[in-house]
Amino acid sequence: MSLTISREIRLVSRPTGIPSADNFALASTTLEPLEDQQVLVRNLYMSVDPYMRGRMNDRKSYVPPFELGKALDGAAVGEVVESRATGFKPGDAVSSTRGWREYFISSPKGLYPVSRDNQPLSVYLGALGMTGMTAWAGLNLVEVKQGDVIYISGAAGAVGNVAGQLGKFRGCRVIGSAGSTEKVKFLEECGFDAAFNYKSGPVLEQLQAAAPDGIDVYFDNVGGESLEAALSALRVHGRIIACGSISGYNDEKPGPGPTNLHNMITKRLTMKGLIVSDWLGQRAEFEKEVGGYFKTGRLINKETVVSGIEHAVEAFIGLFRGENVGKMVVKLGS
Amino acid sequence: MSLTISREIRLVSRPTGIPSADNFALASTTLEPLEDQQVLVRNLYMSVDPYMRGRMNDRKSYVPPFELGKALDGAAVGEVVESRATGFKPGDAVSSTRGWREYFISSPKGLYPVSRDNQPLSVYLGALGMTGMTAWAGLNLVEVKQGDVIYISGAAGAVGNVAGQLGKFRGCRVIGSAGSTEKVKFLEECGFDAAFNYKSGPVLEQLQAAAPDGIDVYFDNVGGESLEAALSALRVHGRIIACGSISGYNDEKPGPGPTNLHNMITKRLTMKGLIVSDWLGQRAEFEKEVGGYFKTGRLINKETVVSGIEHAVEAFIGLFRGENVGKMVVKLGS
Repeated sequence: MSLTISREIRLVSRPTGIPSADNFALASTTLEPLEDQQVLVRNLYMSVDPYMRGRMNDRKSYVPPFELGKALDGAAVGEVVESRATGFKPGDAVSSTRGWREYFISSPKGLYPVSRDNQPLSVYLGALGMTGMTAWAGLNLVEVKQGDVIYISGAAGAVGNVAGQLGKFRGCRVIGSAGSTEKVKFLEECGFDAAFNYKSGPVLEQLQAAAPDGIDVYFDNVGGESLEAALSALRVHGRIIACGSISGYNDEKPGPGPTNLHNMITKRLTMKGLIVSDWLGQRAEFEKEVGGYFKTGRLINKETVVSGIEHAVEAFIGLFRGENVGKMVVKLGS
Repeated sequence: MSLTISREIRLVSRPTGIPSADNFALASTTLEPLEDQQVLVRNLYMSVDPYMRGRMNDRKSYVPPFELGKALDGAAVGEVVESRATGFKPGDAVSSTRGWREYFISSPKGLYPVSRDNQPLSVYLGALGMTGMTAWAGLNLVEVKQGDVIYISGAAGAVGNVAGQLGKFRGCRVIGSAGSTEKVKFLEECGFDAAFNYKSGPVLEQLQAAAPDGIDVYFDNVGGESLEAALSALRVHGRIIACGSISGYNDEKPGPGPTNLHNMITKRLTMKGLIVSDWLGQRAEFEKEVGGYFKTGRLINKETVVSGIEHAVEAFIGLFRGENVGKMVVKLGS
């Protein structure tokens, strides 16, 4: 019986501002032999997501902070190498929250079986995973319907591009903003009705040009200037999905909110905060609907893939430099 | 047949910052004799409300701006002096949107009959009028229910004190903030479970002392520091009624929003904007419920009364100096 050596990424110091490589360390650990009712999993892909930045601060939030000196965690998809648990056999594909490492041992309840029919398996980190489900939940949260004009910021990101595609399937007019010409082109490929580069000019001006009669829904992944522009562009009884505010995740001191929040009153807007974990009870419904779009080739699952756990930190930091088009994933399997 | 002379308040220049007396003029106008299907009304009470400040700016909003050189308008309650319309006879009490003047001529559709059983008739500007209905609509908007801990800013104002009393009737724990010792005492008389003077120390500290386990609902009449404190104190899935932001109504340049709006996401909060005109279709339901509380003496309709149209401007400006406890009304009838 051979012992398994697993490399993992640990948090060694808490970042101030944008994280840097020296906040992290690549370390090796030796896994114990399996006990009864345990499963050994080799990760094939791991997720890096902007929300992880919040967990690097020593601050209570909706998930506990990462502990210093320990491996990070997050969504991953892998395959069973060895099993002493009923219901799991070598070769089975599973998703888990045990990313940032090459191998891990789990009890069955920490594993969620996924089908190999959907390829690449990294789709379970993107369109069919947490970020895709976030997009789907957001549209349901504010009851997006046919005819709505919806504006999505961070639209080329993992959540944003799926939200836009799902919006199109629902019969909406979809407008997206992103941070490069390449990303704007990608949004057009995804079927967005209009897309603009927020770095090319004031967001409000570009949004008004794309939606002269205003918008009904704003899917916020960015906060800051995008939120302020949306508050101005929203029509009476408009809705805001407060999903993310990546523009502020690395602020050492929180910046001020929008100066035009008063529009919430005058236009009787609704803003709802979204954390996907509230929606896990509806996972089957999500998988049926969005899985169907993916299987038939209607939904594009765009990825930016970085290979090797030794590059996972760069991939994570790259999220805040806008280096991903679609879902940023790290490929761990050979 | 004698002609009627009516005094009225006109807007003569648009205020910058806090309005001053010279933005307004008291003028007299002579009313024409009644035509068929017209009614002559003498106002007994008129309303001054903070939202009117917004209409003094030359800016499109949910109601059109006041026009320079013309009489202001707003809620009023009066009695019919002469009628050439079926359904209206001298002595009938009516509410209207034709305040800021002593007399006016109206078609029947601009008049809303009210009962003289409720006294003083100024209650139709307060608890049984627009501000009371705003309070009632706010609680319904976010489905305030038994057991909720609700924090109300501007709680001694016309909307706030009724919201607090209705919250108590629904079985909530109610906390209010106001700007003087006298007002805090009034809130205690209204049955609030806790009340504090926001001028006595940081709002967040005082709110946390009153609600150590956090709040479920925030009824915002103030904005600014109160909103920021509430965003911190709200529990997961908490709700915000965005009803007013009097702290900013006189800003020459809109101030920044709260620095902790990110709590909308992490705590999955819901914020909904409220304008009472959206609720006019439910007026009968409101009158039945809140009218019932008033008739039985359970609901206190607290007023600050200023007499004479020549003092209406002072009463209005006084709203921004916190001079009202309860509803500020101007008595016009002798």
